[in-house]
Amino acid sequence: MFPDGTGLNTRSRTNFSHVRKSFRTQGIMKLLGAHISQLSKGIVEISAKSCPALSQQDGFVHAGVLATLLDSAGGYATLSLLPPDSRVLTVEFKINFTRPALGDTVHARGRVRTLGSRIAVCELDATIRRNRKWRSCAWGSQTIFCLRPEGDRTKEKRD
Amino acid sequence: MFPDGTGLNTRSRTNFSHVRKSFRTQGIMKLLGAHISQLSKGIVEISAKSCPALSQQDGFVHAGVLATLLDSAGGYATLSLLPPDSRVLTVEFKINFTRPALGDTVHARGRVRTLGSRIAVCELDATIRRNRKWRSCAWGSQTIFCLRPEGDRTKEKRD
Amino acid sequence: MFPDGTGLNTRSRTNFSHVRKSFRTQGIMKLLGAHISQLSKGIVEISAKSCPALSQQDGFVHAGVLATLLDSAGGYATLSLLPPDSRVLTVEFKINFTRPALGDTVHARGRVRTLGSRIAVCELDATIRRNRKWRSCAWGSQTIFCLRPEGDRTKEKRD
Amino acid sequence: MFPDGTGLNTRSRTNFSHVRKSFRTQGIMKLLGAHISQLSKGIVEISAKSCPALSQQDGFVHAGVLATLLDSAGGYATLSLLPPDSRVLTVEFKINFTRPALGDTVHARGRVRTLGSRIAVCELDATIRRNRKWRSCAWGSQTIFCLRPEGDRTKEKRD
Repeated sequence: MFPDGTGLNTRSRTNFSHVRKSFRTQGIMKLLGAHISQLSKGIVEISAKSCPALSQQDGFVHAGVLATLLDSAGGYATLSLLPPDSRVLTVEFKINFTRPALGDTVHARGRVRTLGSRIAVCELDATIRRNRKWRSCAWGSQTIFCLRPEGDRTKEKRD
Repeated sequence: MFPDGTGLNTRSRTNFSHVRKSFRTQGIMKLLGAHISQLSKGIVEISAKSCPALSQQDGFVHAGVLATLLDSAGGYATLSLLPPDSRVLTVEFKINFTRPALGDTVHARGRVRTLGSRIAVCELDATIRRNRKWRSCAWGSQTIFCLRPEGDRTKEKRD
Repeated sequence: MFPDGTGLNTRSRTNFSHVRKSFRTQGIMKLLGAHISQLSKGIVEISAKSCPALSQQDGFVHAGVLATLLDSAGGYATLSLLPPDSRVLTVEFKINFTRPALGDTVHARGRVRTLGSRIAVCELDATIRRNRKWRSCAWGSQTIFCLRPEGDRTKEKRD
Repeated sequence: MFPDGTGLNTRSRTNFSHVRKSFRTQGIMKLLGAHISQLSKGIVEISAKSCPALSQQDGFVHAGVLATLLDSAGGYATLSLLPPDSRVLTVEFKINFTRPALGDTVHARGRVRTLGSRIAVCELDATIRRNRKWRSCAWGSQTIFCLRPEGDRTKEKRD
């Protein structure tokens, strides 16, 4: 879907340093003990350990913590397709919590499905590991507003 | 909307102790420095101080932090209308982020709009204070699944 | 919320003719037998009669019909705040169906909550009349992308 | 995902007649000229011809028409996994409209991602054909409430 056209080469050469740099400035990621565990064109995975400090009343990972990890994952998945001086803002997200988030490690993935000049739509998907088995616990969609640097002609994409 | 019928009197007499007790067990609320600032039948407000540890890359409160506070607010707004032995689970939420969350204090409110035997729908609304002025920064909806104790006949409500 | 500033006077003078004209070109509104029953700055109500042709399997008005009326209501509520040469596109909507839509007439209302230069967020709300009583049957939110004519300086608004 | 266990055999033997029968009673599907074009366990596709009667102001298929087809597709995808005497109700759906729906034929697909005892979550996806090429124009998620016949022990599933 993202053939290595002229527009995208630049960013792959930079190893997504603008994404990593931005991620390091998010105070909440540090607070949650989260790190980027996968980063490629249009796909970002953020991981965190489950622990009592992230829990709701039944000991599951709080739905809002999953939403936080997923929101950053989708935002950075979008930023990974944009030039270094771009900015991304979350317009909205909607997430279904499909299973109690019980386990030791969470993977929150964001994947760009549609990228227009202003609007990107991402798929969000979280899995949690319990007894060495990964299971989906949250799934949803996100709309991102893209602020590109002036004169940007980066390719758009749609699934 | 919630006339003081037999079913609801019990809970108002208890000062919503089942809500407060459950809130105290949410590790994430402690981590975010959040507390319940308003609690009445079907309405809960949770407040937190804005600080670098809750921020995204531009210094705004992270959308996921707002979602976390709002999710708990809506869940507890629902629980406030249910008998003490009930449980609530978030099925899904959808939130629009309508303004950059820049300021010193966040109020996240959940209000039950519809309460059925199994499903509640809440309105979620977050405001942030900057220069002594409160402004809305996030707004959305939430679906809650209610697990009532057996034999419960609490009144339902719909706006 | 919409004080009669310079930017808005123009449009109130035109009696929202750009909104009415656009509405008449929507083939689906004619097919559903829908008409605009209220139109003011930032608020549009569209009405339709319930009938077997609009029903789902239980004889209720189909959720998608409610969504169709609500989507147009929110879109035109947004357009009512923009200059005549503007266009609006639905980015997304999310609707909760809070009660079976059983009755004889549906009112679908869209109200602009937030209007930025590019993005508007609307509240959607449908009621249905049964035995002379109106009840809410659907409620949700909608994101609209605004294409304003070049050089437009219309006021933005946020709740 | 749906291995042929005892619970599901019954329904595959019946050729999903309870789904087809229910579909025929939806007045709106007839009004839109829609038919079921694919039907298997947990997946339903509904198709309709694009025509002026289904259009919005720019001649695209109206977002609400896509939502109507998608809502029925997801509902029947869920019903296809439940015993014949079951009922399904849409709790909510959220749909992103990712491309103008310009073309001659629409395919609206619903796929069950998660099926619990009461709640199912479906993925909704619409494509439109233009110049013989199919492109995605809408994508979203849906929550369904399942009313199973008493004593039902049908298998649940989660992705």
